[in-house]
Amino acid sequence: MKIINSPNDEQLAASLKRPSINTEQLENVINDIFTNVSEQGDQAIVNYTKQFDSVDLASLEVSGETIKNAGNQLSESLKSAIQIAYQNIKTFHDAQVMNDLSVITTEGVECFQRTSAIESVGLYIPGGTAPLFSTVLMLGIPASIAGCENVILCSPPQSNGEIHPATIYTANLCGISQIYRVGGSQAIAAMTIGTESIPKVNKLFGPGNQYVTAAKQKAQKYGLAIDLPAGPSEVLVYADETAQPSFVAADLLSQAEHGVDSQVVLVASNEKVATETVNHVITQTASLPRKEVIKQCLQNSVALIIEDKNKAFDFINNYAPEHFIIASNHSDQYIPLIKNAGSVFLGNYSPESAGDYASGTNHTLPTSGYAKSYSGTNLDAFVKKITFQKLSKKGIQNLGDTIMTMAREEQLEAHARAVEIRLNNL
Amino acid sequence: MKIINSPNDEQLAASLKRPSINTEQLENVINDIFTNVSEQGDQAIVNYTKQFDSVDLASLEVSGETIKNAGNQLSESLKSAIQIAYQNIKTFHDAQVMNDLSVITTEGVECFQRTSAIESVGLYIPGGTAPLFSTVLMLGIPASIAGCENVILCSPPQSNGEIHPATIYTANLCGISQIYRVGGSQAIAAMTIGTESIPKVNKLFGPGNQYVTAAKQKAQKYGLAIDLPAGPSEVLVYADETAQPSFVAADLLSQAEHGVDSQVVLVASNEKVATETVNHVITQTASLPRKEVIKQCLQNSVALIIEDKNKAFDFINNYAPEHFIIASNHSDQYIPLIKNAGSVFLGNYSPESAGDYASGTNHTLPTSGYAKSYSGTNLDAFVKKITFQKLSKKGIQNLGDTIMTMAREEQLEAHARAVEIRLNNL
Repeated sequence: MKIINSPNDEQLAASLKRPSINTEQLENVINDIFTNVSEQGDQAIVNYTKQFDSVDLASLEVSGETIKNAGNQLSESLKSAIQIAYQNIKTFHDAQVMNDLSVITTEGVECFQRTSAIESVGLYIPGGTAPLFSTVLMLGIPASIAGCENVILCSPPQSNGEIHPATIYTANLCGISQIYRVGGSQAIAAMTIGTESIPKVNKLFGPGNQYVTAAKQKAQKYGLAIDLPAGPSEVLVYADETAQPSFVAADLLSQAEHGVDSQVVLVASNEKVATETVNHVITQTASLPRKEVIKQCLQNSVALIIEDKNKAFDFINNYAPEHFIIASNHSDQYIPLIKNAGSVFLGNYSPESAGDYASGTNHTLPTSGYAKSYSGTNLDAFVKKITFQKLSKKGIQNLGDTIMTMAREEQLEAHARAVEIRLNNL
Repeated sequence: MKIINSPNDEQLAASLKRPSINTEQLENVINDIFTNVSEQGDQAIVNYTKQFDSVDLASLEVSGETIKNAGNQLSESLKSAIQIAYQNIKTFHDAQVMNDLSVITTEGVECFQRTSAIESVGLYIPGGTAPLFSTVLMLGIPASIAGCENVILCSPPQSNGEIHPATIYTANLCGISQIYRVGGSQAIAAMTIGTESIPKVNKLFGPGNQYVTAAKQKAQKYGLAIDLPAGPSEVLVYADETAQPSFVAADLLSQAEHGVDSQVVLVASNEKVATETVNHVITQTASLPRKEVIKQCLQNSVALIIEDKNKAFDFINNYAPEHFIIASNHSDQYIPLIKNAGSVFLGNYSPESAGDYASGTNHTLPTSGYAKSYSGTNLDAFVKKITFQKLSKKGIQNLGDTIMTMAREEQLEAHARAVEIRLNNL
């Protein structure tokens, strides 16, 4: 991890760069998968699962029996942890429920807004050796609060042919009963097009590898919405003189273990905290199981020493980190300086892993600078807001001239006539 | 306008179809424009404006003097109408302001959400003979309420080299001072890449022709967000036995005058209202200035007679209309049946043109069935929601085991260690 003291503009610009995601070379593969799923339905899913996961599927859908019994395969401590996390995430997302709003804008003109759940949502949960059951909570809980009618979950089978029981158990906790043993871009294609077993959805959620990302991009061409543009996960830690370097090092490492393209940035207010943190990074790495991944990741990582607080936050807002830790005893004083970030971790006792799992906030967040224009996944992502207006006779009388004047200036005579015919009838 | 009584499944499915927007054949043109704007900046904008708008631009930015004086070229009645509309739209969008929320999810664990304006937004306003100053209100007002720091407006110059004064006047009313004389995909390229005069933005808003649509798609590859996927404008009217056929006809025509690809659908609860409406459509068309466009548009339009209310609303929710008029004396009773729509017009005195201009709701709405998963433009579209969490020592003590258990199950040991190192330090 390279330390740069008082970086110049060029060094700051270089630190803003993210790896570009190029899925164009995957286009032919993805096109084939969509075509085959479209033409052969379930059979295509079975074939791809044999090819990619080396599993022979007898049925795609997980049975009610399997769902009910999934918890038996988990330790009590894991189930208890999942339940605590569930409760915190539910509490925070429940607080995001919006009241319908209604205003009288002009006498006789009532405008209101009502929230309506997206009817069918598809949740993609990556599998493999480390099942992301935490992501089931992050997507399943807001889908349930929103009241989505159909919540479809796809996750790849393990070598034993079954989805990891922690994923199934967590899905069941979130009230999800439509669970399918299918992963990768074939899962995305199935939820986009629909097969005999797997329903077509309106919006797709969830992380995935480059094939899943490319398939989600393709799904948009079929009229589906997606949660967020994808990119490698990131953390930026701002550490001032009251930070604990050993904690900061642990936080940087928790991001670095995700993969060699993970983005790890330290912005320190002085040289001492930067140097000590980097030393702790080296020491702590030695005993971590993923140390080879971490070492590669850290080769591309940087620690910037920026003494001026405003300059530091200019850089941070420009970077727009997915995860932003403020390692300081007086973290609250920095809040007004934050313009762009996915989720913020305040103080010396708020590690990123708290938000990854259990504090209550969502861990599906904008990467690659998208925090400049996108929110992380929240309740909003599972609903649409429909607007309504109701004009009484008095209302059209009050507003009729205004509408006709504007419509005629825009040379839309029929727009004006739709008002005139009503006014003439009063 | 063809009447289908009791449509069968096939006829219903055919009525759901929308024209597909294929911008792929424009890709080379758009790529060239982006390349030239990237390499030559303002000079490329000047060249394209000469080529496409036949205008020699001395400067791209509209001067403060021009902005101040724009109102002098407008009638008092137009200015007054714009001001009334402004006030209604502001009232409704002000009501969308969200309070920051904060909850304690576990003792010592505070989670909160703060709304933060998108820093730089670009508003594209089409020009030509009929300037869409109403769209300036719809985008400029929420941008101002959100507190976006930089609001950039681009609109093509008329043949006299200047943007239409109604557009400039309305922009000024919305507090927009950065206005540029540039239209088409070159405007989108400029706001995506940035030139010497025109700043780069984080998110693009506004309607446009197929070149603008293709350019907005390209902008997403540069990391910008966009408001909504584009498609031709639509209205669906549900008319029951208490509808006024002459009003319904006028509403259908106000949509039909937009263009030959406008989507116009009538769903009637009985044959009488359908037949009478279609007769009124024919009569009213005769005296409209855009009758040739309207006639072409109506050739592809359909009136469906569906007696069963629930069947009718199943179809309507499947169609997910951009504009949805409920022409009925008891329109409120249908509200609970609505799942998917952009904006809804209730009762016999709420024409679509009320919402297009002045009721207070936004007229930038999801077309082509996107109302199944997208909201129309509202205050949310101009902000991001950033989440925060702050754990005290007590908080990490309470939640530490939960986090570590989950992290280790997901085989992310460094995530667990970031907690452990803090617990060991307490």
